[in-house]
Parts: sequence; C-alpha cells; structure tokens
Amino acid sequence: MYVDIGNALAAEATTGVSEASLERLDERVARAHERVETGIEAREFGYTSLALPTDTDPEAIRDAVAGFDPEAVLTVGIGGSSLGADTITSALGLDGHHTLDNVDPEHTRRLLERLPLDSTLVNVVSKSGTTAETLANFLVVREAMADAGIDWTNRTVVTTGESGPLADLAVEHDLPTCSVPEGVPGRYSALSEVGLLPAAALGGDIEAVLAGGAAGREALEPSLFDCPAYAYGAVAYATEQRGATTNAFVPYAEALEPFAEWFAQLWAESLGKDGLGQTPARALGATDQHSQLQLYRAGRRDKLVTLVRPRERDDHEIPATEIEELSYLSGGGLGELLDAEFEATEASLADAGQANIRIEIDRLDAHGIGELLYGMEAATILYGELLGVSTFTQPAVEWGKRAARGLLGAGDFEEAEAVEDKTELRIE
Amino acid sequence: MYVDIGNALAAEATTGVSEASLERLDERVARAHERVETGIEAREFGYTSLALPTDTDPEAIRDAVAGFDPEAVLTVGIGGSSLGADTITSALGLDGHHTLDNVDPEHTRRLLERLPLDSTLVNVVSKSGTTAETLANFLVVREAMADAGIDWTNRTVVTTGESGPLADLAVEHDLPTCSVPEGVPGRYSALSEVGLLPAAALGGDIEAVLAGGAAGREALEPSLFDCPAYAYGAVAYATEQRGATTNAFVPYAEALEPFAEWFAQLWAESLGKDGLGQTPARALGATDQHSQLQLYRAGRRDKLVTLVRPRERDDHEIPATEIEELSYLSGGGLGELLDAEFEATEASLADAGQANIRIEIDRLDAHGIGELLYGMEAATILYGELLGVSTFTQPAVEWGKRAARGLLGAGDFEEAEAVEDKTELRIE
Repeated sequence: MYVDIGNALAAEATTGVSEASLERLDERVARAHERVETGIEAREFGYTSLALPTDTDPEAIRDAVAGFDPEAVLTVGIGGSSLGADTITSALGLDGHHTLDNVDPEHTRRLLERLPLDSTLVNVVSKSGTTAETLANFLVVREAMADAGIDWTNRTVVTTGESGPLADLAVEHDLPTCSVPEGVPGRYSALSEVGLLPAAALGGDIEAVLAGGAAGREALEPSLFDCPAYAYGAVAYATEQRGATTNAFVPYAEALEPFAEWFAQLWAESLGKDGLGQTPARALGATDQHSQLQLYRAGRRDKLVTLVRPRERDDHEIPATEIEELSYLSGGGLGELLDAEFEATEASLADAGQANIRIEIDRLDAHGIGELLYGMEAATILYGELLGVSTFTQPAVEWGKRAARGLLGAGDFEEAEAVEDKTELRIE
Repeated sequence: MYVDIGNALAAEATTGVSEASLERLDERVARAHERVETGIEAREFGYTSLALPTDTDPEAIRDAVAGFDPEAVLTVGIGGSSLGADTITSALGLDGHHTLDNVDPEHTRRLLERLPLDSTLVNVVSKSGTTAETLANFLVVREAMADAGIDWTNRTVVTTGESGPLADLAVEHDLPTCSVPEGVPGRYSALSEVGLLPAAALGGDIEAVLAGGAAGREALEPSLFDCPAYAYGAVAYATEQRGATTNAFVPYAEALEPFAEWFAQLWAESLGKDGLGQTPARALGATDQHSQLQLYRAGRRDKLVTLVRPRERDDHEIPATEIEELSYLSGGGLGELLDAEFEATEASLADAGQANIRIEIDRLDAHGIGELLYGMEAATILYGELLGVSTFTQPAVEWGKRAARGLLGAGDFEEAEAVEDKTELRIE
C-alpha cells in the first residue's frame, strides 16, 4: 500500500497540516504505535484484530465449506457480518455472492426467487446469534428452502460466537460452523472466518488475502513517515483537527464499491464518539465526479477527500472512431481514461485548496485487498488513539436496538416510549 | 409526499430551528416560491425542470422504443444521464436495467459478457454528444456487438441534444432518437426522456411516474407550512445555517438505493457553491444503522439526517420459530421490523439532539417515485433560492474535465500542467 499525503499539507490545502506539525504529531504516532503493538501482542480486545492475518486459520474455513460447490453463496448477516465478505468477493471478481443485510420484504422475496436455492450455500453470520434482522431473514430463507423441497440443514453453514441460539442450532442439526474470533468487533472481522468464508466457498484465494494482510502487519512502523497506514490515519486526524469533518472516500474501481461501504462503517463506528469523528461520505470514481465534484471543489472546505486506486489494471482498448471530436480517445484504454480522471480530480481538488490523499495498491487482487483492508484498519485504530476515543465499542447503537425491541413487543423498554412521544410537525 | 419536521425544531435538536424563526423564514419561502413560479411559467433555464411532468410527452418516448421488446436495457451515460433512469427502474421493480456509467475496463468487460446482447437495447445518453466516458463506453459496446455478429444500428436508441456527434450519428444511421429537453440540467432530467426511456422500454408505467410528478407540481404552495417539498428544503437550509453541514440521506427500502445516489448528485451539484452547501452522505436503512448510527448519534452535531420510507409495503411474514429468544419476531413481518427500526432510529437521533426529518410517500410505486423525484427537485431549488447560489450551473466540474482532456492529448490545457506539478509526499 502506498499513501501520498502531499495534497494534505498546509501549503496546499485549507485544512492541511504543516510539515513542522507533522513532525510533532509523529512523536504521538510513535507512542500510539507502542500502545497498538502491546495490544496486539497481548491479544487485547479490539487490538487483536490486527493479529488476524496470522491468527486466522484458512484450513478451518476450507473445512467448513468442504463438500459444497455452490453456484451461489447467500450471506445472511448485517453490518460487520456482511460488509467484509462483500468487499472480498467483489475485489476478487467472484460472481455469485449475495447478501441479505436488510429486512426489506420486497428485496428478500425477489432475491430468494432469483437464487438457485438447490445450489446455494446459506451462510448465516451473527456473533450473538440473536441479531433481529439476520435471524428474521434466516427464518424466511429456511421457509423458502422448505417450500422448494430442499433440506436447509444440508445447505447451511453458521458463523457465530461460542454460545447463543445459532450455536445451539448448529449443534442440534450438526451444521458446519465457524467461530467469530474472540476480541474482534464485527467491523474488524474481514480478515477472519466472517469475511473470508464466502470467498473460500466460491473458490477464492483466501490464503493470498491473508498474505496481503500479513504484509500490512509487517509494514507497521513507529513513524508515519515510514508507514503508509499510519500516514493515512495521522493525516486524516490532523485534517479533522483543522476542520475537515467529512471524509469523502472515493475508490476508482467498480469492484471497490463494497470496500467503500466497509470503510464507511469502520470509520464511522470506530471514531464517531464524544462529539468527534469524521463523517464518511462514500462515492465512486470516475462516476461521482459527475455528481459530487462541484461540491468538493466549490463547497465548504470541511472535507478530506480520499482517492483510492490500483496502480495497474488490465485495460480495454477504446476502438477507433469515425467521430472526429472523439479521435483523442481512440487507441487509448478505458483504464487510461479512468486514471487520467483520477489525476485530474486530484489536481482539481488541490487547485481549490481542498485536502486530499492518494492511496494505491499494486493491483486489485487477493493480496491487494488484504493489504488495503489491513491498512485501513490500522489507520483507523491509530486515528482512534490520537483522538482518544474508545475505538472498539459502539454504545450509541444500543439505544435504538432497545427501542425497536420494545416496539415489537419483546419486553418493556423505556426507549420505546420515546418513540410514542415523538414531536410532530407534519406538512401534508 | 409527507414531511415531518418535528425533530428538526430547536426544542429537539442542536441545529434545529425555532418556530418563530420558521415563521420568519416562511416569508422568504413565499418570495422564493414566486420566483420559482415565474421561472416555471417562462420556462427559464433550470426552473423549466419543474414543468417536466406536463411538458414531457410519454408518447415520444414510447415511439422511440416501439418495436423493441428487450430482455435488457443498457444505458450508457453518466451522472444526470443515468441516475434518474436507475432510480425509476429500481423503484418500479423492473429487472433488466444496466448502466455503464464508469470507465472501469474490468467492469465494462464483465457486464458485456453477461448481457444477452442480441436482446439488449442500448440507450446512449449524452446531451453534448461528447461526454468522454459515455462515448468511450459506447465505442466499446458497438465493438462487442459487432464481435457478436449483431448490427448495433438495429439495437440502439440515442438521447441527445439538438446537435453534436451523437445527433449526427443518429441521423446517419437512422436511429430512434429522443431529445434532451432544453433548459433542463442533467441532474433535473429524471422526469424527461432521459430518466423515463429505460422504464418505458421495460414495460414500466411512465405515465404514472409523470402523474406523480404532476401531483408534486400541484402541491407547490407559497408557504412551507402547506407544502411538503418546501418544508423539506427550507428546514434543511435552516439546519445548515445552524451548523448541519452534512445531510445524511437514508431511505428505508432497498429499491430506493439509486434514489439516494440521485439525490446526492442533485443536492451536491446544485448547492455546493461559494463555500456553502450540505454534503450529502447516502446510506440505507436499516442496514446502515449497523454502521453509521454510532456516528450519527454520538459524533459531531453537524448533521441533518433525512429518513425516507413508503407508508405501506407488501409485507412478508416471519415464520414461527422454535428459538425462544426470537419468539417476539414470529408472526410479525419483515416490513414491520423495518418500520420499527425506522421509528426507533428516528427517536434515537431525537433523543441525542440530532436533527432529523421524516419524508414519506404512500407506496413505493410509479406514482410515488414521481412524487418523490419532483418533491426533492423543488426542495433543492427552494434551498438554492434561500442560499442565494446559482442552483442550475456546475462551473467547478469543468476544471477537472479540461485537465483530463489535456492529459489524454486532446489539446493544450493549462490545467493538465497542474497535474504534472503535483506536490508529492509519498509514504511507501
């Protein structure tokens, strides 16, 4: 992974950081790195995520999916239980991974109608085994399989914690099971069973993904000037301090669209605390240049724009054309055009004093995505250390969960009463 | 369309607006409404977009696609040339609409491999007829069809302006053609030929979409207290004035995911000017509750959260279960769960003093999406009037386009030199 922070320096950007400040910040990076290393070594809660590339046993995953040769994998899970798997299967170009990560009746129904259920592997993922959306969808999937005359117990693999309803169910029906690793919050579980199982079931090279993660582990150094992941985390933090309250995250590759979603969860849920944290706004290059660039260049200077791309792509030549106005495109490649737009956008932002950072990997492949996932996790953890927040918890999510349970009659929850008391000012 | 601004009042939210301020703001809304009406009546640039529901001739669209009965429609277009069509086909539940709105070689190649080219209608959309990404992709599509032994001139429809290379091509090969309406910026063209053609080709009820838009037109009134669209635009503006620099836009329906993308372009490109404008951050309920809610509730109070849903859904019952912890779900519906989460999230944000607005339509159908598209356009235009920006232009997008053209050797552009002069600080 390569990071270029040149366009986030004070000389270039309104919310940029001076080189002298960076030097001072680097002392804090060194101390934070020490804290992170201690946490990794002791397998402390959260920090242990950064040990996954070597702690995860790919054989256990391969064992769980052995005997299946599915046309499709249907992951039933939400948030950290599905985004990593989506990111990895997409980056590896594996067709056939589908996700039920919402409780939209129309969407669930249509997806189940479309899938070849008799050659689909159902992958249910919930650490607690009680996640409402996931279990509700799973019950619907079981029913659809029964309706199609398929024994769901022959086509289901479970990834869950040590105990809970899903773990019990797996024992009862003798289902292949993977464990959600201890000490790893969902949003940091991409490089574990949680993120890797669907790719393994579809024939992906999960060992190479883990090797990419391990390369990221090797690259952690006590100075932001020597470590791309820390350079990103530290400079993003420095821009937030200087007013960049939004992080517009823009990969230039369609296959990285789920990666941007994964990143948005990682960033928001880890850092959005105590009235702090950058809001991730995900976009996709070059497409969203035609929709967001006006704002990025001429709107408020309250953003960091993160541009991500692979350095090499298999290009596709643009055919010759009789249309004179387009002759400049002929003989070039679609990828060449995409890269020209990447560089043009980067320069356009710099020209407007809008802070931006470039992140690159060599190629968008199994190793590359492993590196990128690990690098962004390390960057987020470093940022959390600098910000002084509790990076690995998500207390503010609980209130809404209790309110929803109360509304659904699962018990008495005072939060549900607040729902009834909503202040209304309706315009019809 | 229904809008509830109760949770954006000063009594509820940090960036909320007092009822007294709303009364004062309403005088400005009345004047802005007058300006908008004058613009619509005179078919002024931009404002004329709000006349589309009655100005658009659905017969012209049906004529252009008559004779095709495609299995798939491939829209080749970017930004405003594709997002409206994506939004409408998705909301109508029409399968088979695909878009090439990026120049990612891998993505283009894979999509073309997957499509049944001999029963695909290619829909090329570019007002100028020179949009680099669109024309490059079109050249590749033409070649793929030729390689498959298909005469592209029999399977292509063009939507473009009065003149330009695409218009010339259409004449030369006698292609069915639709006109991009005059005076309508791309991001406001959903309710025209540009947004409606793919839905028409796939059998969608475009007349009902236009009727929904016409209902939105009927609903414009000179007071925010009488007009849902203006209530949304005015209160969003008021929250920005009070520090809500981000608009987290969260539909609770999978089929509205493209609508959120469409909205993000509309909002960003119309309002992101002169150092002003809210940054749209799109998300999807309930999925993203598990990733963004921590930040929305506990991060900076610099957001307006917009929650969108249909009031009615065809629900799907959650089957009974032997798992005791989940018995509260049994017999309920997936949609019921989704709606409980919607209300719980809304209350959770209000409890934290985080401004939010609820937008509802009766049902997610052709009429509903027409209403919603029109309502959001009117809201954006009203907001632009209040903010005093040039809502219908996008001057900041041009810089990057010139730089990219320079890089690709299409001429001398000084912007391309800035790309070469990039400040680098690489961490490897």
